[in-house]
Amino acid sequence: MSLRDTLRSIVEKVDGGLAAMIMAYDGIPVDEVCVEQTEFDMQLLSVEYATVLKEIKRSVEVIKAGDMEEVSITTKQTCVAIRVLNEELFVVLIMKRDGNFGKGRYLLRLNSFEMAQELS
Amino acid sequence: MSLRDTLRSIVEKVDGGLAAMIMAYDGIPVDEVCVEQTEFDMQLLSVEYATVLKEIKRSVEVIKAGDMEEVSITTKQTCVAIRVLNEELFVVLIMKRDGNFGKGRYLLRLNSFEMAQELS
Repeated sequence: MSLRDTLRSIVEKVDGGLAAMIMAYDGIPVDEVCVEQTEFDMQLLSVEYATVLKEIKRSVEVIKAGDMEEVSITTKQTCVAIRVLNEELFVVLIMKRDGNFGKGRYLLRLNSFEMAQELS
Repeated sequence: MSLRDTLRSIVEKVDGGLAAMIMAYDGIPVDEVCVEQTEFDMQLLSVEYATVLKEIKRSVEVIKAGDMEEVSITTKQTCVAIRVLNEELFVVLIMKRDGNFGKGRYLLRLNSFEMAQELS
């Protein structure tokens, strides 16, 4: 399955799934899929979440809590699950606030090894 | 129940619970409870997570995703759930990597209104 197909299958399988993307820490998306029109500026979102991830990466290194694996951010309108793929890339799943967060996290974890292999 | 008692009850009820604290965005803890000796420097951890939260708060404002409610960060060694209490404070629950993350999140949500009331 191509990267885009994997991303699409993840978004479509999750209730409330809006979009999924593979991104680099510089905020540039490697690939992305939107299954539902969102009100968010995806480019802005990519850059912002990349900045946040870089900050978290730096912090967990300072605390010596081991490598970062997963981050989730819930706001009044969205729920975002992020999983690190390798030193340079991570995958982001954007869901509605009432989306199935647990399933989203699970599917990211389930597919992360395959996506990382595809990108290596 | 005092704030400290509430924090202690949350940590004790969660498998793998290590510590819980209420913190301000400047990194200064309002109250904290450690039920198990951790290898982490709690003061450093407070300051780092406060920095991360400020960055996320700024980002979700830029994206216009609505107010930040909850953040979780999983690393090789720990799982940290954070819930916003009000404009200035948030509560942090630190668990072992294999701790009961779902229950931790649930207990933070369940007790956040009461803690926010206690602090208002």
